[in-house]
Amino acid sequence: MANKIKVTIWNEFRHEMHLEAVRKLYPEGMHKAIGAGIKADDLEIGYAVLDEPEHGLTEAVVNSTDVLIWWGHCAHAEVADEIVRRIHKRVLEGMGLIVLHSAHFSKIFQALTGTNCSLKWREAAEKERLWNIEPAHPITQGIGEYFELPYTEMYGERFDIPQDGKIIFMSWFEGGEVFRSGVTFERGHGKIFYFRPGHETYPIFYNPDVLKVIGNAVRWARPLLFAEHTAPNVKPLEKISPKEADFGVAGIVQQVEL
Amino acid sequence: MANKIKVTIWNEFRHEMHLEAVRKLYPEGMHKAIGAGIKADDLEIGYAVLDEPEHGLTEAVVNSTDVLIWWGHCAHAEVADEIVRRIHKRVLEGMGLIVLHSAHFSKIFQALTGTNCSLKWREAAEKERLWNIEPAHPITQGIGEYFELPYTEMYGERFDIPQDGKIIFMSWFEGGEVFRSGVTFERGHGKIFYFRPGHETYPIFYNPDVLKVIGNAVRWARPLLFAEHTAPNVKPLEKISPKEADFGVAGIVQQVEL
Amino acid sequence: MANKIKVTIWNEFRHEMHLEAVRKLYPEGMHKAIGAGIKADDLEIGYAVLDEPEHGLTEAVVNSTDVLIWWGHCAHAEVADEIVRRIHKRVLEGMGLIVLHSAHFSKIFQALTGTNCSLKWREAAEKERLWNIEPAHPITQGIGEYFELPYTEMYGERFDIPQDGKIIFMSWFEGGEVFRSGVTFERGHGKIFYFRPGHETYPIFYNPDVLKVIGNAVRWARPLLFAEHTAPNVKPLEKISPKEADFGVAGIVQQVEL
Amino acid sequence: MANKIKVTIWNEFRHEMHLEAVRKLYPEGMHKAIGAGIKADDLEIGYAVLDEPEHGLTEAVVNSTDVLIWWGHCAHAEVADEIVRRIHKRVLEGMGLIVLHSAHFSKIFQALTGTNCSLKWREAAEKERLWNIEPAHPITQGIGEYFELPYTEMYGERFDIPQDGKIIFMSWFEGGEVFRSGVTFERGHGKIFYFRPGHETYPIFYNPDVLKVIGNAVRWARPLLFAEHTAPNVKPLEKISPKEADFGVAGIVQQVEL
Repeated sequence: MANKIKVTIWNEFRHEMHLEAVRKLYPEGMHKAIGAGIKADDLEIGYAVLDEPEHGLTEAVVNSTDVLIWWGHCAHAEVADEIVRRIHKRVLEGMGLIVLHSAHFSKIFQALTGTNCSLKWREAAEKERLWNIEPAHPITQGIGEYFELPYTEMYGERFDIPQDGKIIFMSWFEGGEVFRSGVTFERGHGKIFYFRPGHETYPIFYNPDVLKVIGNAVRWARPLLFAEHTAPNVKPLEKISPKEADFGVAGIVQQVEL
Repeated sequence: MANKIKVTIWNEFRHEMHLEAVRKLYPEGMHKAIGAGIKADDLEIGYAVLDEPEHGLTEAVVNSTDVLIWWGHCAHAEVADEIVRRIHKRVLEGMGLIVLHSAHFSKIFQALTGTNCSLKWREAAEKERLWNIEPAHPITQGIGEYFELPYTEMYGERFDIPQDGKIIFMSWFEGGEVFRSGVTFERGHGKIFYFRPGHETYPIFYNPDVLKVIGNAVRWARPLLFAEHTAPNVKPLEKISPKEADFGVAGIVQQVEL
Repeated sequence: MANKIKVTIWNEFRHEMHLEAVRKLYPEGMHKAIGAGIKADDLEIGYAVLDEPEHGLTEAVVNSTDVLIWWGHCAHAEVADEIVRRIHKRVLEGMGLIVLHSAHFSKIFQALTGTNCSLKWREAAEKERLWNIEPAHPITQGIGEYFELPYTEMYGERFDIPQDGKIIFMSWFEGGEVFRSGVTFERGHGKIFYFRPGHETYPIFYNPDVLKVIGNAVRWARPLLFAEHTAPNVKPLEKISPKEADFGVAGIVQQVEL
Repeated sequence: MANKIKVTIWNEFRHEMHLEAVRKLYPEGMHKAIGAGIKADDLEIGYAVLDEPEHGLTEAVVNSTDVLIWWGHCAHAEVADEIVRRIHKRVLEGMGLIVLHSAHFSKIFQALTGTNCSLKWREAAEKERLWNIEPAHPITQGIGEYFELPYTEMYGERFDIPQDGKIIFMSWFEGGEVFRSGVTFERGHGKIFYFRPGHETYPIFYNPDVLKVIGNAVRWARPLLFAEHTAPNVKPLEKISPKEADFGVAGIVQQVEL
């Protein structure tokens, strides 16, 4: 038990409540579909949703999570800044983060990338082919040279993300666009994976390739350690040559003792 | 005049007001020392400080600035979030940003990098040697293979920044530490340069190498264009094959017309 | 004249000699079509082809070239290793290099990237749409959010290049593939741009967008300086503490004098 | 046994043969000292040296190696190009490679980076402090925020390597220089770690921190898969619109059949 990876799947969980068609597709919410789809002996999976107190992401939950999965779409603005700061801090300390689909516009992904994360989009139930760019990467193990989603919302470039996003998947869309649809980042001690598939109106979180990728990403994003970031005032490790009483124009700094 | 680079130098301007020794060193503020030091025919230099309305960074000022230089230290928290968002947005649209010394902990640098930007530090008037890692880069033109600052505050690694920071200078410190002391980033359409030198109690903004680097960085960070980030709903460029009325479990997406 | 950029356009120039259809399309060779297409007052353009002595790339030519443009396809193996080393050395010293289309498999591009540069391909006269990923980059100035080539040879991912290739263009192909079709690298002091368009059987080097991009890339790749790489034995800049005669197991190193 | 990592430690093994002091320090060669130092149940360690046939790196050896460790210094030029190509190919296919100290100038490291790999150097038995820049990385587990080597040959910047080298360690030297002393690269499907420590005249390969890092790097560089790079001619995945017999100036390409 101690060695299991503690995964928390966070879902906005609004579309499923308010739209009959989405509820039909994901009766218990996308978070539960994802959880069922990646279930495995090495994972200990918990859930949290927007409308719980603190969005289900109390200090206790966040601090005992190894990898957080995030899906949001219509209510990004309702996520409290305080909770975003809590998660952001924890990612920099080591927690893994997997950002799904429309969560490209989540506060947490924007905060971690520093960019706008804007893109083009279209809902036309079109075909997407995700090309596997890094077959030797842990995230793509078990995936062939590409996989297809027959009906998807389209996301097109330019995707406003930092260029150090390592490209794992690149998508081709029937309607003529391309997209960096699987991209990893490292910020602080934490690993981040953005994965494009996942619109609420398609059965994408039942797709075996999508679930395989998410499961792989959880293992890849598992932290080796958690460490807080501090800015310590440190003693010199080497002898610093003595300075004259007035060593220049300023003359206000005291010479430290070794 | 039209082709001049519009530079705004922003300074917290508090140490100079409250500490006799700093005022003696920078009687008109560090911003004015920097401005005098980089003065040139191709630059149109303006100034702004924390205690002005909107910190001197009104929409009009920000929107007519090509490159913003930022120095802050003891009052990062007093910079209004609204102004930080305004600058952040403008950098993503193309504005250049030069972040000096203790502004590693400024809200704007943290927001753009997505990281904590923490580091070790020490005030011991020690020697720093900045090694020029990229002699072919525009920022290092006119600089030799290294330059020295005889009395500096020390900043030591680990510097918590994203690994896509391109290293322009690396520092050696007398007391035993090293530091990535000149680093470039690109976020959105904007270019960012973090440059370590600059403590308020040393005459660093009178140093010719430091001023040369800042001046070079201004030209390097000049935007080629400004463009807003939008997330347009776009028409397909290619014919999308017609879908069945009910194309799966969901069946709620309307087929778009070409 | 002194400030002109010296461009050398190198072409294998074999298809044009041996295939009637290619000769009809490029009667004087692709190099001359490119040269005519990018002609401008700030460029001084020269030409070199495989079957000249030293492939037209003598020490004198290489050492007076600012930016080298390279097109090869069926005769990569005939390029002498000595000439490849000469060009490689010069790129590391600062010379810009623009690698076109099938030159992904040229010895010089493989040598500079260290990778295989393999890809998928197909000749089906299909449509390519090149998405502009970095509209603020010097290479894309004057290009819209995409441009199209109606008939192209397809190149598909996985393209085996280092992940620090900064993506300028990403291609969509009618037949279902995607490709990183405009990518920049920096190696040593030199800048490298790989640009995908350019098969010998299509009039691609008459396309205004393609020519605009190549011309922009020439200005972008222009060196600020040339500098040889050396590995000097250097004196210490700081006093090194005296060592005991036998400072460990080895005891064979002489203490240097400051 | 099947799951052990197959490690081959390659050593030039010349200094140990010809210099009494080095032989005293490493009586069986540095390769054997490293092997003894990283010995563990999950590793199956073999050895190869320059003066064996094919330098001990036959097809059989290379193709059954998961991670190759490389030390060379005075005889880089004697390594046959054919063997370098064999290793290079295998790294691109997935084999891990750990490059030690003076092997920065080995043919294989230069071939993989595409750069000159030049640096400054000095033999003065001076102190080196290696700062741990990425405490959350697999390579630094068990290492504190820095470790020291009391007597080392100095390597100083500028180190001519590609900027995508992820910095794991940065060194401070007593004599005033800095260096990127632990750097990772990925090329093809293979992982590469350059690690600076290791001069033949110091007992560096008996240092527990150095050995810990090398052992960690072996596990990090272990391949998930081996895959050859090919450039297949592929069929379209989508229907390509029929082209006119003469679709432009060229008209020589045959329309493929779906």
